[in-house]
Amino acid sequence: MPRIWSQTIEAHRDAVREATLDATAALVAERGLTSVTMSQIAKDTGIGRATLYKYFPDVESILRAWHERQIDHHLQELVHTRDRTTGAAERLQAVLTAYAGMLFHRPRHDRDLAGRLHSGDHVAVAHQRLRDFVGDLIGEAAAAQAVRQDVPAAELTLYCLHALAAAGDLDDPEAVRRLVRTTLTALRPPPDPNEPATGEG
Amino acid sequence: MPRIWSQTIEAHRDAVREATLDATAALVAERGLTSVTMSQIAKDTGIGRATLYKYFPDVESILRAWHERQIDHHLQELVHTRDRTTGAAERLQAVLTAYAGMLFHRPRHDRDLAGRLHSGDHVAVAHQRLRDFVGDLIGEAAAAQAVRQDVPAAELTLYCLHALAAAGDLDDPEAVRRLVRTTLTALRPPPDPNEPATGEG
Repeated sequence: MPRIWSQTIEAHRDAVREATLDATAALVAERGLTSVTMSQIAKDTGIGRATLYKYFPDVESILRAWHERQIDHHLQELVHTRDRTTGAAERLQAVLTAYAGMLFHRPRHDRDLAGRLHSGDHVAVAHQRLRDFVGDLIGEAAAAQAVRQDVPAAELTLYCLHALAAAGDLDDPEAVRRLVRTTLTALRPPPDPNEPATGEG
Repeated sequence: MPRIWSQTIEAHRDAVREATLDATAALVAERGLTSVTMSQIAKDTGIGRATLYKYFPDVESILRAWHERQIDHHLQELVHTRDRTTGAAERLQAVLTAYAGMLFHRPRHDRDLAGRLHSGDHVAVAHQRLRDFVGDLIGEAAAAQAVRQDVPAAELTLYCLHALAAAGDLDDPEAVRRLVRTTLTALRPPPDPNEPATGEG
């Protein structure tokens, strides 16, 4: 098969996939998780049912792919937050603030979805990527003396991600800010008793 | 019905119930969640199947009752920990340490069970009881100036319970101790800049 032709097929595949997931997102937002059916998706996208079934054998696989795409977008957003912030301590704070905000704004149906797809390996993989990503930021901040070094970075990462998950139980953006501040307090290096206080630690 | 007779019936009911839940605990510990069946429980307890079905319509209801009993025991343990410790700050620390230890030692099947019974109201009720219990301890410690007062006690409670849940992802008791220490750091009142340091804050 000529290369240009395989690229065309690949692009078509991506287009079918993206259209399916966009239709899923719109359906869920409008009418909830249970409104997603193979025939509704076929109708909304204009993709023939036979074609749709070639890409996705069932609703579960559509929801899983959609969930994966959402997780990817969130991780990308955190990467952008990191990349547009300067300084190890500031980066860590910006990323953890963004992460808490995501959990705070997480829609109800997303939690239901996570429960429904709980057996999915993709969630475990995404959690590991998130842990690695935040773990690196904490390691860099620790190297810059901006984070305590008496607890390994991997453990501080677990601590942070769990603590910030409380954002999902809060109902006030001010409370989320206080949660981030509280969580970050515990990351600070202990004050050096030999140095005079300089206002900002 | 004479009172003595109704008391006898009540005691019999409790005995059937306790025997069923004890047998469930033993079965799960030995052979896992899926080994719990109505006939196995009837066999292990010596309770007739017809009687067993009068108390529990299905395996799900047995597992739910067993789960409730476990949660009750854990809450009681935390209450005992509180009651044998003196001082608001010490009490809070002792209870949070005990709680982290429970999450660390939580057996695999208990997580599976929580997933399987996730629709149960009893879990939501137990979470609320736990939040109230820890919230009171944090409020008392804040009143004793041992906990920061710039964040409401209810929010600090959510923070603590979420942060300590990281214990379930750790595989080393030393790491659990570090987690408790880290979590508690964030609860401390900010140091008073007008007072000289006195070693222990």
